[in-house]
Amino acid sequence: MLCATIRSGVVSLLISASTPRVCHWVWGGGWLGDLGALDFAGGTVVHVNAGIAGLVASLVMGKRRGFPDAMMAPHNLGYTVIGASMLWVGWFGFNAGSELAADGTAGMAMAVTQIATAAAALSWMFSEWVIHGKPSVLGIASGAVGGLVAITPASGFVGPMGALAIGAMAGISCFFAATTLKRALGYDDSLDVFGVHAVGGIIGALLTGVFAAASLGGVGLAEGMTIGGQVWIQFIAVAATIVWCAVISFIILKLLNAIIGLRVSEDDETAGLDVSQHDERGYIL
Amino acid sequence: MLCATIRSGVVSLLISASTPRVCHWVWGGGWLGDLGALDFAGGTVVHVNAGIAGLVASLVMGKRRGFPDAMMAPHNLGYTVIGASMLWVGWFGFNAGSELAADGTAGMAMAVTQIATAAAALSWMFSEWVIHGKPSVLGIASGAVGGLVAITPASGFVGPMGALAIGAMAGISCFFAATTLKRALGYDDSLDVFGVHAVGGIIGALLTGVFAAASLGGVGLAEGMTIGGQVWIQFIAVAATIVWCAVISFIILKLLNAIIGLRVSEDDETAGLDVSQHDERGYIL
Amino acid sequence: MLCATIRSGVVSLLISASTPRVCHWVWGGGWLGDLGALDFAGGTVVHVNAGIAGLVASLVMGKRRGFPDAMMAPHNLGYTVIGASMLWVGWFGFNAGSELAADGTAGMAMAVTQIATAAAALSWMFSEWVIHGKPSVLGIASGAVGGLVAITPASGFVGPMGALAIGAMAGISCFFAATTLKRALGYDDSLDVFGVHAVGGIIGALLTGVFAAASLGGVGLAEGMTIGGQVWIQFIAVAATIVWCAVISFIILKLLNAIIGLRVSEDDETAGLDVSQHDERGYIL
Repeated sequence: MLCATIRSGVVSLLISASTPRVCHWVWGGGWLGDLGALDFAGGTVVHVNAGIAGLVASLVMGKRRGFPDAMMAPHNLGYTVIGASMLWVGWFGFNAGSELAADGTAGMAMAVTQIATAAAALSWMFSEWVIHGKPSVLGIASGAVGGLVAITPASGFVGPMGALAIGAMAGISCFFAATTLKRALGYDDSLDVFGVHAVGGIIGALLTGVFAAASLGGVGLAEGMTIGGQVWIQFIAVAATIVWCAVISFIILKLLNAIIGLRVSEDDETAGLDVSQHDERGYIL
Repeated sequence: MLCATIRSGVVSLLISASTPRVCHWVWGGGWLGDLGALDFAGGTVVHVNAGIAGLVASLVMGKRRGFPDAMMAPHNLGYTVIGASMLWVGWFGFNAGSELAADGTAGMAMAVTQIATAAAALSWMFSEWVIHGKPSVLGIASGAVGGLVAITPASGFVGPMGALAIGAMAGISCFFAATTLKRALGYDDSLDVFGVHAVGGIIGALLTGVFAAASLGGVGLAEGMTIGGQVWIQFIAVAATIVWCAVISFIILKLLNAIIGLRVSEDDETAGLDVSQHDERGYIL
Repeated sequence: MLCATIRSGVVSLLISASTPRVCHWVWGGGWLGDLGALDFAGGTVVHVNAGIAGLVASLVMGKRRGFPDAMMAPHNLGYTVIGASMLWVGWFGFNAGSELAADGTAGMAMAVTQIATAAAALSWMFSEWVIHGKPSVLGIASGAVGGLVAITPASGFVGPMGALAIGAMAGISCFFAATTLKRALGYDDSLDVFGVHAVGGIIGALLTGVFAAASLGGVGLAEGMTIGGQVWIQFIAVAATIVWCAVISFIILKLLNAIIGLRVSEDDETAGLDVSQHDERGYIL
């Protein structure tokens, strides 16, 4: 758990700092909303933002001592499954609740959330089965989170078949981002905030432009809008979010590093942040 | 966890294979539905089916190596309680959601689900307290699942007192099925899919015919129908499901055994399926 | 876990014994209801009652062997967080459901529950950070429960800013009750039923009288009622509950002690109640 806590705190700060701006861009009459960008429950506003902030924080803070040579697998897979299950159920409130009404759109947002999440859990599992030879419960849980992220911007706009496609593609994309891409780039993102939240959020935001079309089972695009045109608008929204969030995160991290520092001491890191920062141990058996 | 994973996979396949048929028998104009069989949220359709498939799979696949001499108690009761709690809450969506509307029937389905589940948790606990001398949290959790299963077919049809009776009887019946009956028959059903889902489902399906009667607090039987007549129809539905599911499960298992085999190698089983099949460990403490 | 189980059982009995009386005082035309006492979802009816019963039980039963010298920290903080999370989500049903309708009051009850709980989690965390030098996840979880308790009587009556204030004050008050006050008085309340449920319930019940006022964002007091007058009525309700519950709990505990005894034998307590009373172990790793 080295660095995880302080990193989370910093990433939370970064999201807090850049989310309000992007939020006003998309919702309540901002320029991305005026442009016609679709983001039902916060795909770019929350997840692309968080994922980019996490990546920038990983790069600025540097790696945990010992990474990647020391074995740093999740230490309790039961907790992973419980956490993913709680997220899955809580997310129904997040996506369906974004309709701010108990109507058919909220019901469909809930149904597509379920479908996309299940599809992503399976597509990640089958991807790792093909590539690594064995399916794992960590893969199922990670894929589910990727699916939840990807369906978030699409949830009020797409139908069941669109959700199936978005989920399946999110599971595969997040799997490659969290394994092949992460290894290739060498950054240390212990929770795969970039691989799951940024990549899942980008996939979901772009595909919302495709599957929102009435011809593909969605609620329909604005009058006169083509799928290509909508995807281009979605791309602009994603790109603007990435650039804004990366720049703001970098500035805030550098400022924090100068003022209070971003890393704990070597001794504290070796002892573990649970003990050194919180005076707690996970287990006293 | 030996065999649990592959067995679950096989059982899931079997349910997938026989559920659609039974589902069409009961809902949407099938012969059991025409006959007047009552199954609000899937007692015969899902749970009797699953329980019978689990029993047949246990018999065809055979026992885990070392069963029943080796100690194979649940290894983490905290997880058992967490899992049962999540099932309990999720089941409200399953039973109340089967009304497909937010109305009084859905509200009553939710209330009777709570009542029956609590009653079954207590009746299992008191049964084992009387028989084994001590109440246990595993008994409370198992009883709760038995109650959830038993109220499933009844949930839109019975009132609070009917739910109390169904739950109490389900807890006692499932307790005897998962202890005395299992030991007597000698099959190795590690999750008690038969003892809890089949027995709980059968009890619930039959008692739905009793407590759906208006004189016993239910929504009332069809015009001119007696309690005896309704229970007979429920019995036909249960019996048809058992026979159909047992035969289809047996055929599929034998086919799978011939094609890909049902059991892992002795080495893999001894190493444990977590490690040999999924390359994962539950805990790295 | 020594004593925890039997203590819980006894406390449950005590609550069962005194809750119905207080419930009829407050709801359905009792004297506290006629006086104008506000208790939306059971702050005095459930939590002050439970907290006082817990304190009386702690005093009558005495301390666990070895308390307070032996180290008795929570043995699994992951479970603590999971349990607090489940409580938090379940509590939405408790508070919003007390409206018995799906309307704006239920929605606001849910929103203020979220706000007060988050505020209390943070205010406990910051309190311990200031006093003990480090923030902890146990503090966040404990503060969340304190906030849930405190917002319970207020949930249908106050607005978001009132919830923020109630939560913040509950977190700080419960922190001092569960640490400084507990140490000073020397009672052994392993679950902090008094520190969290009684103190949180009292804070919430009194502040309901303040923040229910329309001038402070609430739904408004009865015609002609001042904030001071309402707080005085809330104080009478709390005081009556404390006296009633303490007396009844003391009588029941003394009776139970004479008839069946309240404590297990020294051997059973040393072996642990899990093993000696339930024949179960939490972990078989």
